[in-house]
Amino acid sequence: MKNNQNYQYVVGVDLGATKIYAAVIDKKGKILGSTRAKTNAEEGFNQVIDRMFDCIMKAIESCGLTLAEIGAIGVGSPGPLNLVEGTIIETPNLGWKDAPLKSRLEKTLKKPVKVDNDGNVGILGEYAYGAGHGAQHMVGLFVGTGIGGGVIIDGKLLHGFNENAGELGHMILDPNGPLCGCGRKGCLEAFSSRLAIEKQIRIAAINDLSSTTIFKKTKSKYDRISSSILAKSYADNDPAVVEAIDRSATYLGYAAASLLNIFNPEVVVIGGGVVEALGNAYVKTVGKVAVENAFAIASRNVRIVPAELKDDSAVLGASFLAWQAIG
Amino acid sequence: MKNNQNYQYVVGVDLGATKIYAAVIDKKGKILGSTRAKTNAEEGFNQVIDRMFDCIMKAIESCGLTLAEIGAIGVGSPGPLNLVEGTIIETPNLGWKDAPLKSRLEKTLKKPVKVDNDGNVGILGEYAYGAGHGAQHMVGLFVGTGIGGGVIIDGKLLHGFNENAGELGHMILDPNGPLCGCGRKGCLEAFSSRLAIEKQIRIAAINDLSSTTIFKKTKSKYDRISSSILAKSYADNDPAVVEAIDRSATYLGYAAASLLNIFNPEVVVIGGGVVEALGNAYVKTVGKVAVENAFAIASRNVRIVPAELKDDSAVLGASFLAWQAIG
Repeated sequence: MKNNQNYQYVVGVDLGATKIYAAVIDKKGKILGSTRAKTNAEEGFNQVIDRMFDCIMKAIESCGLTLAEIGAIGVGSPGPLNLVEGTIIETPNLGWKDAPLKSRLEKTLKKPVKVDNDGNVGILGEYAYGAGHGAQHMVGLFVGTGIGGGVIIDGKLLHGFNENAGELGHMILDPNGPLCGCGRKGCLEAFSSRLAIEKQIRIAAINDLSSTTIFKKTKSKYDRISSSILAKSYADNDPAVVEAIDRSATYLGYAAASLLNIFNPEVVVIGGGVVEALGNAYVKTVGKVAVENAFAIASRNVRIVPAELKDDSAVLGASFLAWQAIG
Repeated sequence: MKNNQNYQYVVGVDLGATKIYAAVIDKKGKILGSTRAKTNAEEGFNQVIDRMFDCIMKAIESCGLTLAEIGAIGVGSPGPLNLVEGTIIETPNLGWKDAPLKSRLEKTLKKPVKVDNDGNVGILGEYAYGAGHGAQHMVGLFVGTGIGGGVIIDGKLLHGFNENAGELGHMILDPNGPLCGCGRKGCLEAFSSRLAIEKQIRIAAINDLSSTTIFKKTKSKYDRISSSILAKSYADNDPAVVEAIDRSATYLGYAAASLLNIFNPEVVVIGGGVVEALGNAYVKTVGKVAVENAFAIASRNVRIVPAELKDDSAVLGASFLAWQAIG
């Protein structure tokens, strides 16, 4: 479904496990209006589609526009997805299977809809409007509860044969390393994710309770350690926290070194909740370790920089998809 | 320099550190005639260009053709290269710097010349005419003295920003692992190359001389252990050799697992002197470890197969470049 009218706006939607975020965006990546709602995925796919529709319409109304003025809709969704059909093949986070995301939204909105998985869409946002702007070869690594990633080659997302390329969080950095959530050993995610950092701190505390005071900052010592609490303890020079975070950044640097040798990118964008909380020091460590461990020629002129778009990366990337749909 | 005449033949040249191999090749990848000569790089770039010219002309004459019937020339060369200019930036193997390979050959031959680095050209050969034929997404890993690699995405070689992508031999598989020839620790090459296998066997022999009889097969125990001697001792179930080779295949499998997660390819081609000597058992181990350590969806339907073209991969890949030059 192509549409060559001279539209000025599209809608980007970030469909997350907990929230839906829809934004009206122009060609320069400016957000003109937006709405958020809870996903409540347990109510089922049909309910969520209706809620996405409401969100999209409210975002459009919030900037005094009508659906007729919107060229297309882009959606970042949890995956794995079938990109051609625009279906969610399966998603543990949302609990759906073979959900016809694209066709249902197109039927409801009577507009072209393009979908991609949430990680890729965030990378696309940073590529088009954020820290990767202007580069044609980009690698993105996003450190949160897990580790997401994506790759842009010659200005295009790397999708691969089954459209599941870019699982950079599961590069093996030590086959005898710590157990990963994926069931294997020594993946990047098992060294560098927020959960891996938390686990390291707990191991340190079990061995020596005096090695950290972080559990005075959490509600109880069984409580999840958030990125912002990590950042506070890091700023306080809490020994176990500093060690765990430096280890996270160092292993992310090793992964980035391999990615420099593999892709020879122009820019590596480092983002995600952990990185946003910890700031530039974390990214600097990643960059140092990466360049030290990659070939000089593969790291020549490369920029290793923090992501810029934060929570907006997915809607902006989704808006870029939407422009492609009517390009 | 484009040329749209309806040519039937091109010449592919494999410029190696020790030999030059030129072949006349048709559109289907059939080699009609070929010549080889020693490189003798120490005589200097101009001498080698003259020798390449001789080789090309003799290959053409050997199949009763003339230069006028040749559409273009493709060359695989040691690198790093500047692909746009067609110059060899620097090459420790040949001892040249900023050597204008493409322009000198074009001046001499009055035909379009396209160059790429030897590793990439070998991958391109397997993609176009060998084990990767028909696939659009392919990863190649070549195990010899070192480890070469390359990646095809959507039918095109991955080159990256500085045209130095594809250094798969220097993916980090253990930051505390054995020292690599590149000066860093735990690269794939430090686990899986012929030199790494040889080193492991020597370590085993130092610890326990009875662990191997391989030095009865080499001229002296200081002598290089060739791939064919490795294969003989492996067939004889020499304990240290079996262990070192299984370790090589296992770590190559870990690297392949990461590459499945990163690229989600349709086919992974495993080649090089070590693999040719050891045969399918080696490739099977690689495939097993790779699939066990990658996401199911990233390895669904993937083929992990031995290379097919052996010594001809580079001239065939170079011929594919040549067709592109007049495409």
